[in-house]
Amino acid sequence: MNRTIRLAVIPGDGIGPEVVAEGIKVLRAALRDSDVTLDETHFDLGAARWHRTGEVLPDAELEQIKSHDAILLGAVGDPSMPSGVLERGLLLKLRFDLDHYINLRPSKHYRGVPTPLADPGDIDFVVIREGTEGLYAGNGGAVRVDTPHEIATEVSINTAYGVERVVRYAFELATQRDNRLTLVHKHNVLVNAGHLWRRTVERVGAEYPGVTTDYLHVDAATIFLVTDPARFDVIVTDNLFGDILTDEAGAITGGIGLAASGNINPTGAYPSMFEPVHGSAPDIAGQQKADPIATISSVALLLDHLGLADEAKRIAAAVDADMEERADAAEAGMPLIRSTAEVGDAVGARI
Amino acid sequence: MNRTIRLAVIPGDGIGPEVVAEGIKVLRAALRDSDVTLDETHFDLGAARWHRTGEVLPDAELEQIKSHDAILLGAVGDPSMPSGVLERGLLLKLRFDLDHYINLRPSKHYRGVPTPLADPGDIDFVVIREGTEGLYAGNGGAVRVDTPHEIATEVSINTAYGVERVVRYAFELATQRDNRLTLVHKHNVLVNAGHLWRRTVERVGAEYPGVTTDYLHVDAATIFLVTDPARFDVIVTDNLFGDILTDEAGAITGGIGLAASGNINPTGAYPSMFEPVHGSAPDIAGQQKADPIATISSVALLLDHLGLADEAKRIAAAVDADMEERADAAEAGMPLIRSTAEVGDAVGARI
Ligand SMILES: CC(C)[C@H](C(=O)O)[C@@H](O)C(=O)O
Ligand SMILES: CC(C)[C@H](C(=O)O)[C@@H](O)C(=O)O
Repeated sequence: MNRTIRLAVIPGDGIGPEVVAEGIKVLRAALRDSDVTLDETHFDLGAARWHRTGEVLPDAELEQIKSHDAILLGAVGDPSMPSGVLERGLLLKLRFDLDHYINLRPSKHYRGVPTPLADPGDIDFVVIREGTEGLYAGNGGAVRVDTPHEIATEVSINTAYGVERVVRYAFELATQRDNRLTLVHKHNVLVNAGHLWRRTVERVGAEYPGVTTDYLHVDAATIFLVTDPARFDVIVTDNLFGDILTDEAGAITGGIGLAASGNINPTGAYPSMFEPVHGSAPDIAGQQKADPIATISSVALLLDHLGLADEAKRIAAAVDADMEERADAAEAGMPLIRSTAEVGDAVGARI
Repeated sequence: MNRTIRLAVIPGDGIGPEVVAEGIKVLRAALRDSDVTLDETHFDLGAARWHRTGEVLPDAELEQIKSHDAILLGAVGDPSMPSGVLERGLLLKLRFDLDHYINLRPSKHYRGVPTPLADPGDIDFVVIREGTEGLYAGNGGAVRVDTPHEIATEVSINTAYGVERVVRYAFELATQRDNRLTLVHKHNVLVNAGHLWRRTVERVGAEYPGVTTDYLHVDAATIFLVTDPARFDVIVTDNLFGDILTDEAGAITGGIGLAASGNINPTGAYPSMFEPVHGSAPDIAGQQKADPIATISSVALLLDHLGLADEAKRIAAAVDADMEERADAAEAGMPLIRSTAEVGDAVGARI
């Protein structure tokens, strides 16, 4: 049975194109001996495009993107962009228009990777961040702007529909892992949204008697991420808390540079989007200094989402092996120094 | 010139009464040789009171509290309390009704205090958290509760008036410290509120040319608190981000158990409230195991707020000396083991 993956590729700005090139290299390696053909369409979106044309994401391109099976994004943005233009107009636009209600963010500490924690323990958890509601809904406004009477609001929108589908996904994931689910919210202050989340976890949880659930206020969760990150298995939380926790998780595991993510629509109604958590890092762009591991791991999530679990596992295993090699080399006092492409080659060669 | 401080004391639940007793012991010691008399009124508020009477904060008691010069609170709550009752009905009610728009939270790492960071560096910063707006305004609601069509909202309210007064306070504080101010927000997503905060910092900052300002998204701030906390001097941020950052700050400095805070109304229109950041810790309540340092440091903030800067400094110096003694003892392999009261006695004796 032959199959074609129509992949929309958004290399973006800064180090985006470099890391995406390696992601695709490894993706091709993983599909080499399969019946799956890769059909890429590149989309020129991001800061460079905006500077050149003033366009962020024209409707026609959004429609074209929708006709693909999945999206691989590098990173977009540069320091000269006005705040919010690409975030709201491109990244969040894609997440919302393609109904990416699951933002999947695994966190793992690889042996030998320097971490700011004295004793990181065995960090291996996944944050399931809601992707289409909360304070990210863009619901808010301002009146009397730039006067002493300005009022600016931001509205967090939470629906039973939206919360239940992400909570269900998180419980399912927990059954495939260590059967532990932590809800993070702030229901003692955000009583309306908090109680919706809490009730939903209780109700859905009754269908998963094998999964142990607990609850942490977001402030307490930021403490545990530093003092005892190994306690977590699956965390489910809202859009903003997930944003905060996953960056902190990146920090404790030794860098956002290794963190993969998927913006997933599990129904398949729209293509899901996979991207490294890191940004465009303009300071090192074009120098082959960026680590492509986060993008390569994102490609593994992409394959898994498309039902190619074996291929996904082979990439994940190749990444693990590469990280082991780095750790061994560093321990031997000869840390590996490789270009972005060399890392891609090395991981690809292991597949 | 004789002066009386009318102090409203809310010992609260769990370890609250124990740590408050030591705070008052040290307060009395600091005032011993002065013309200032302390006149305490104790208010029985918190979980125990609610369990007994169903009351949280009756209006008459709120009025009585208002007639005091300052409030010292231990901690309230126990695990059997329904979520939000004491938080919204007592703690936030006091912050909002007494217009505590400055939530002052210093973070400092004392030598010898175990921290989860491998290399904490020289951590000494202050978070100025807005206390009367944002998502804490209690503005939100829910419709079709407990149905598949439930919608729950939480509204973050931000006003020019509210933002400017806290930003001004933060700039003033920066001039008394290292002249560095960091605004933390998420203006690339929360564009309305974010831009109000940003414009306000720019505008007020023009009056403080000696203060260097920078900006971090809240997710990036959680990273830097782990990777380079020594970079911060004064952080100014909104109510929710401040809640999150100060708990993480407590974690990296070796424990929320040492962190003091003031809920301050700088105009003096209402009494300000001082409290340790930690909770009521029911598991160790009544055992004289709690460290009263956070409460004692809160008392120093209280005196400073009331214009008794010398007395405040003497308490701060006594706390520093006690922390040095702990560090020396631990280094010598004989860590100090003291009851809550013994720590209070030791600090009091140094004054
Ligand atoms: C760029 C920004 C809109 C985005 C977010 O806040 O979700 C980023 O921080 C992330 O975590 O993917
Ligand atoms: C108890 C709770 C309402 C409170 C808050 O969220 O402000 C606490 O976490 C704090 O930081 O003082």
